[in-house]
Amino acid sequence: ELINSSRKSIHENLEKRNIDFFLDIARKQAEAGANYIDINCSTMMDKESEVMQWLIENIQQVVDIPLSIDTPNPLVMETGLHLATRGQPMLNSITGEEKRCKELLPSILKYKAKVVALCLDEKGIPETGIERLRVALALVKRLTEAGVPAGDIYLDPVITPVSTSDKAGLEALEAIKLIKNECPQVSLICGLSNVSYGLPNRKILNRVFMVQTLTMGMDGYILNPLDNRLMGDLFAAQALLGQDPYCGKYLSAHRTGLYEE
Amino acid sequence: ELINSSRKSIHENLEKRNIDFFLDIARKQAEAGANYIDINCSTMMDKESEVMQWLIENIQQVVDIPLSIDTPNPLVMETGLHLATRGQPMLNSITGEEKRCKELLPSILKYKAKVVALCLDEKGIPETGIERLRVALALVKRLTEAGVPAGDIYLDPVITPVSTSDKAGLEALEAIKLIKNECPQVSLICGLSNVSYGLPNRKILNRVFMVQTLTMGMDGYILNPLDNRLMGDLFAAQALLGQDPYCGKYLSAHRTGLYEE
Repeated sequence: ELINSSRKSIHENLEKRNIDFFLDIARKQAEAGANYIDINCSTMMDKESEVMQWLIENIQQVVDIPLSIDTPNPLVMETGLHLATRGQPMLNSITGEEKRCKELLPSILKYKAKVVALCLDEKGIPETGIERLRVALALVKRLTEAGVPAGDIYLDPVITPVSTSDKAGLEALEAIKLIKNECPQVSLICGLSNVSYGLPNRKILNRVFMVQTLTMGMDGYILNPLDNRLMGDLFAAQALLGQDPYCGKYLSAHRTGLYEE
Repeated sequence: ELINSSRKSIHENLEKRNIDFFLDIARKQAEAGANYIDINCSTMMDKESEVMQWLIENIQQVVDIPLSIDTPNPLVMETGLHLATRGQPMLNSITGEEKRCKELLPSILKYKAKVVALCLDEKGIPETGIERLRVALALVKRLTEAGVPAGDIYLDPVITPVSTSDKAGLEALEAIKLIKNECPQVSLICGLSNVSYGLPNRKILNRVFMVQTLTMGMDGYILNPLDNRLMGDLFAAQALLGQDPYCGKYLSAHRTGLYEE
């Protein structure tokens, strides 16, 4: 999640075209075990396409893992997917909105991209788990009928703040359970930080919510892989869920000093 | 969980009959929000009954919350429940073993005690979640038929180390889900530390497993309420699960400095 221009330091360094800054972040995220590097420069406005190109071309010189092109702009998306040639690229994101689907589907198919699909539509973010399941099913139907393999779809249940509604976390967890049950062939992904918006100790809430969502069946996260406590809890949670044979990954993280404070 | 003579410092202070040491632990646990104070002095062997009596009589002078009498010995249990007069006492624990059930049922009924019931029987601890459900159902049937209200039963799924079997955590989580689904009228309780036995960073694993079990439906824990990180994660997890209206308990814990390091 680190190369996202909604972060102040990222926006400033993009303005300055400080490439070393970005290569360093990209390298560190790859070394820390990221499977994709997400690139979002949407605050660059009319320069977004140019900056996206600049970032992709440079970052692909230093890391081997594939890129996730993170933009709501279909033209920037097309540019990004065209240039992202390391493995299978990811498109972040489409939604159940008719217009956004129509605009982005051609690029998804053309580049055989994986796609993050947010469980929201023209009516906004559904409040309950069951309503999010409904949007999810419609999205999966639409994407698979258009020719996107189910295995390339990453549904995002859309996490909202518990400070706004104290059932927000519970409904998201319910959505995960329902989607996992109804569409076992698609993957689930989400960001974490929205859940803690407006509350103190956000990092603790985000970490705990990661453990909770993972326990309900989440497959991947848009997260900061340089956050040792977050990654430490992730490896611990995977070991406890039987997703880490002989606790090998957990023990290896321990040996490299991840749990030292 | 703090007043347990299997802990070296507890055993030593019991030998010395150092009452101030125990009153301090009891007070601190009550202040930190414990609902019950567990008392286990089983390593005192032939002195167990005498020491149990001494602890109960003294601790009840300084704290108002009820006690959990933690012993495998039926005579010590009878002594403990007889003396534990603060609210409804708890018996920790019976199992599905015929002999243990027979020996302890009279005391449970006589003192209208809550009871921790371990999901194991003559064949030992069942390996899978579904087998633990089977033992749980038999235990609930036996206890309720004998006259114990379902609401007084606290089933313990029995947590075993992931270092011994890397599916141990997953099977325990499955047991919780199944029991919660089949017996919604009984409560679930467990200890945490067994899960991390034999692995490094045990406190982290225990904390993460607390969040996971809570997410699957656990109602209570035998834990150290003086561990700020553990309690911090517990309040965070409850807020994220919609169990804390307006995040009130979480915000109050924050204001009292629980999350300061």
